[in-house]
Amino acid sequence: MKKVGSGRLRLSNLQIVAIGYFCVCMIGTILLLLPISAVKGNTTLLQAIFTAVSACCVTGLVLVDTSTHWTLFGQLVIMILIQIGGLGFMTIGMRFMLLVRRRISLREREVMVESINAYQLGGIIRLTQEIVTGTLIVEGIGAALLAIRFIPEFGLTKGLFYSVFHAVSAFCNAGFDLMGIKEPFCSLVPYANDFLINFTVMALIIIGGIGFFIWEDLYKHGLQWKRYYLHTKVVLATTGILIFGGALLFFIFERSATGAEMPMKERMVSALFQSVTCRTAGFNTIDTGSMSEGSKLLSILLMFIGGSPGSTAGGIKTTTCAAFVLYMISGVRREGSATVFGRSLMPDALGRAISIFTINLGVVLIGALILCALQPFSGIDAMFEVFSAMGTVGLSTGITRQLTAASAGVITLVMFLGRVGSVSLASALLEKKAKPPVTLPTEKIIIG
Amino acid sequence: MKKVGSGRLRLSNLQIVAIGYFCVCMIGTILLLLPISAVKGNTTLLQAIFTAVSACCVTGLVLVDTSTHWTLFGQLVIMILIQIGGLGFMTIGMRFMLLVRRRISLREREVMVESINAYQLGGIIRLTQEIVTGTLIVEGIGAALLAIRFIPEFGLTKGLFYSVFHAVSAFCNAGFDLMGIKEPFCSLVPYANDFLINFTVMALIIIGGIGFFIWEDLYKHGLQWKRYYLHTKVVLATTGILIFGGALLFFIFERSATGAEMPMKERMVSALFQSVTCRTAGFNTIDTGSMSEGSKLLSILLMFIGGSPGSTAGGIKTTTCAAFVLYMISGVRREGSATVFGRSLMPDALGRAISIFTINLGVVLIGALILCALQPFSGIDAMFEVFSAMGTVGLSTGITRQLTAASAGVITLVMFLGRVGSVSLASALLEKKAKPPVTLPTEKIIIG
Ligand SMILES: [K+]
Ligand SMILES: [K+]
Repeated sequence: MKKVGSGRLRLSNLQIVAIGYFCVCMIGTILLLLPISAVKGNTTLLQAIFTAVSACCVTGLVLVDTSTHWTLFGQLVIMILIQIGGLGFMTIGMRFMLLVRRRISLREREVMVESINAYQLGGIIRLTQEIVTGTLIVEGIGAALLAIRFIPEFGLTKGLFYSVFHAVSAFCNAGFDLMGIKEPFCSLVPYANDFLINFTVMALIIIGGIGFFIWEDLYKHGLQWKRYYLHTKVVLATTGILIFGGALLFFIFERSATGAEMPMKERMVSALFQSVTCRTAGFNTIDTGSMSEGSKLLSILLMFIGGSPGSTAGGIKTTTCAAFVLYMISGVRREGSATVFGRSLMPDALGRAISIFTINLGVVLIGALILCALQPFSGIDAMFEVFSAMGTVGLSTGITRQLTAASAGVITLVMFLGRVGSVSLASALLEKKAKPPVTLPTEKIIIG
Repeated sequence: MKKVGSGRLRLSNLQIVAIGYFCVCMIGTILLLLPISAVKGNTTLLQAIFTAVSACCVTGLVLVDTSTHWTLFGQLVIMILIQIGGLGFMTIGMRFMLLVRRRISLREREVMVESINAYQLGGIIRLTQEIVTGTLIVEGIGAALLAIRFIPEFGLTKGLFYSVFHAVSAFCNAGFDLMGIKEPFCSLVPYANDFLINFTVMALIIIGGIGFFIWEDLYKHGLQWKRYYLHTKVVLATTGILIFGGALLFFIFERSATGAEMPMKERMVSALFQSVTCRTAGFNTIDTGSMSEGSKLLSILLMFIGGSPGSTAGGIKTTTCAAFVLYMISGVRREGSATVFGRSLMPDALGRAISIFTINLGVVLIGALILCALQPFSGIDAMFEVFSAMGTVGLSTGITRQLTAASAGVITLVMFLGRVGSVSLASALLEKKAKPPVTLPTEKIIIG
């Protein structure tokens, strides 16, 4: 009897996640290929695959304009793919966090034993329920706020659908929009000076991209900073620095580019929006292609960092970025361990941070080099496109529609790797070490 | 009496190196400002500082053409600055290596006890003598080979001076050249199909950039791979992969750019030369500005990696790059430690690698953003310039001469940080930890 058990096909978490998302992408592709999905009834296989992967991986890069190419049915398929993608990644992320919690120090364990038990009793079903409920509440509020503008503009039915679609897309950090009816591929540019739309979308992006773990901590401990987990403190601090630091730099870089003819207030809001959307939402209120070169570089950097773990966002994550900086500081100060907010980071965070960083950087650099070899794009545009795909951002300087089939294939693969690969890698890295430590003799090499 | 001792001004290694190089740069600046240094007798302060820092930090970026702006005296000053810079960094690098050796495992200590004793007996004077002797021999052979071409072309005196100047510049990975008499700022482009010049210069660059520690190991153990130190194996393997992998990619990227009209043999040699020169010599046999965007991206990557520790080369170093890849592999394989060639890397290499990598990346990104904010360069050209300065490479897509005073100041600072900052940082990181390990409670954050 034992033999049957060990003879079963055993899949690692990594494989389960990858296969699951691959199947969702395939079903999405088939649905989008149906004649009822497209207005003109014809969609190429490449367009369907690219759109399905982009939606399911909540990336938001598009080969065809979402509002004019797809019918209402097609748009519903895209919205559902986005919601599955977004929720799926949050749920998976949350499960890994539970794994982490189970292996924290004794002292910490005492503090949070209650919340662990709650999850252990209710199990994964209850956890998923909580995430789904939270998501629907936030998306509902967001849709209601957007409806204030969209119903007067588009009428009740269309306005309502537009509100829901954009709320889902913003919360899931997907970046798909239906504003192409105004001007193809214009994203939220027509609403650049509508502060209600701007701040609603930003709020949805930030809440979706900060991770369920933070919501829970804030919900439990309110504004009592000292009672937050270290993880919450690091995420909040890093997110704040990235958003406001990024906004300040965009404000400076765009002073003589897209911001040249804007009134001051609008310039400030659009700089803030650009900073929020770069990690990793992918809406835009200014034309990405006409941004200054400095802004493009900064965007690439922010796209690479991305959102926070266990959220709908992509990238190497705010905590990885923070870990790099904290370890650097501890190295320069010649301290034995990286410390922040009166705590030391667990040493194994270092190895995980290097693994995730190196793989992400490796994929984007190889991708950008391949793209440059395939088509004569400017280096910064090629980097922008690949970093956008890997960080599941969905911003583009406009070269997405010029991609040949081969290049589009590369971008599709990078989108899949950026989302599914990163999540399953993070999962694999968090699991208990399967192999015993290697006992080879150690030897120094000289670094730097 | 004790009070006097403890009252003395105590400088850290970091400060000694920085102040020392700062003084050399200042003396160089003053000498270059003298009327006898410049052909037309007038050099601006900015030009003098920029050239002195570029020479002393063996970077090779120039605001004015070395062959037409400077007199023989000025060129001699530059050559001496290069030699001081190159030798200085090698000697400093070597001292740090001795520090490392003193703290290696017992098993390793037995193997190399002889060589340590040799150095400890003879002390730093003997060590420096060995480095100087090695340098002069290699530069002498290089100059002799270059003279075969240069004496017939330029006559005995000038040809001899040109041979020595270029041999020193190549060995020290400085990238200064005197070929501007043919066409301003043309570097070695006129010799693109002269294989003797190509291979001599490449050999000098590689020998200078691989580090004294490797010379010694090769000298002692000949071709017995198994008896090499792990450091030697890692450096040789990484250098080989980077040179030949880089050459292959340059060959592909330039097929329809600068390589379009070259015969096959010449295309292969120029791809190889470009791959070697990027890390971190800075000569060029093809016009850097007209390279394809893919080649520029690849160059930026190679410039960031740079040469090997304890050499005349800059960058984060081959071993840091190797450590990142090895730790990534061990992370993905879920092994406890990074292994290569049957050895585990010492865990403290991880922290050093992250520190050096993060600081270097931070400086270049900030530098590139500032450059973009100051002047309307294309993002890739701005990155190219700053990465070139930080890696002390000296290649430029041609924007160096368009720099305003503010931008030139930024590049000067980056050159100084890239060379002196990196070396002194590496030194500081290698010293015994001064502070006791922090005993704050540890807490997990979720990475990735
Ligand atoms: K997105
Ligand atoms: K150089």
